[in-house]
Amino acid sequence: MKQTEVLVVRLYLNEGKAQLEKLLKTLHDQEKVKGVSVFRGIAGFGDSGEIHTSKFIDLGMELPLVVEFFDSPGKVTSIIEHIDKTIKPGHMLSWSAFVNESE
Amino acid sequence: MKQTEVLVVRLYLNEGKAQLEKLLKTLHDQEKVKGVSVFRGIAGFGDSGEIHTSKFIDLGMELPLVVEFFDSPGKVTSIIEHIDKTIKPGHMLSWSAFVNESE
Amino acid sequence: MKQTEVLVVRLYLNEGKAQLEKLLKTLHDQEKVKGVSVFRGIAGFGDSGEIHTSKFIDLGMELPLVVEFFDSPGKVTSIIEHIDKTIKPGHMLSWSAFVNESE
Repeated sequence: MKQTEVLVVRLYLNEGKAQLEKLLKTLHDQEKVKGVSVFRGIAGFGDSGEIHTSKFIDLGMELPLVVEFFDSPGKVTSIIEHIDKTIKPGHMLSWSAFVNESE
Repeated sequence: MKQTEVLVVRLYLNEGKAQLEKLLKTLHDQEKVKGVSVFRGIAGFGDSGEIHTSKFIDLGMELPLVVEFFDSPGKVTSIIEHIDKTIKPGHMLSWSAFVNESE
Repeated sequence: MKQTEVLVVRLYLNEGKAQLEKLLKTLHDQEKVKGVSVFRGIAGFGDSGEIHTSKFIDLGMELPLVVEFFDSPGKVTSIIEHIDKTIKPGHMLSWSAFVNESE
């Protein structure tokens, strides 16, 4: 089995569905990322400082949205530079990982 | 674009909503973590050894809760030491990553 | 507090519930992984190239499934080799992390 090095990116969004849809479109149409997954948290706290717990879980409001993707280190570095202006400071993580190799 | 090293933490909880709310309160009020996201799995297995699949998905029972946050390595090391007693062995992951820099 | 090195694995599935249940059974019965968590995304795009956004969120269709587990580097390397044939190329990530030690 061969493994290839990649950079994994996790982006923490807080501006709702419009920001998400614009970002997905950019990653898909312009950056040609092969795959992206989006997760919604059930609770959390962030810039507002408020803890969103069970009450917010029930209401389904203002919960964290995380966008995750990975690609070759060079491609991800370039993507990060392109989208940096649209992501708040402290809201875009990246780290090295290995992936089973694409054919 | 500047990037800063952080430690990412993922905590796997299994004692339900009370443990979650207490942990969020600690991370927010005492540890002053800037942001925390909580995710609920749709299936899994853990200490009980039972696989929780579609039946449990439908019932929404006993599903994994994951708490995720990141901060500077020094701050996270200190937080991990503080909360270690409240997290089961083998249930608290951490790894190095980079984040787009906070202003 | 003691920490032990582990390899974390994230698998991105796209063949629905049957693939998930088979994989969970393998990880549990044959590979004896201590714990596994499964997450469902709310949006994404992958091999099909189609973006699945709000329309798909509403329908709950074809959304990403992620299986996550971690264990000692040796055990995970062996598991990755065993299951590699059942996971599409480019769909199995792994990286190093530390875990609070199991008793």
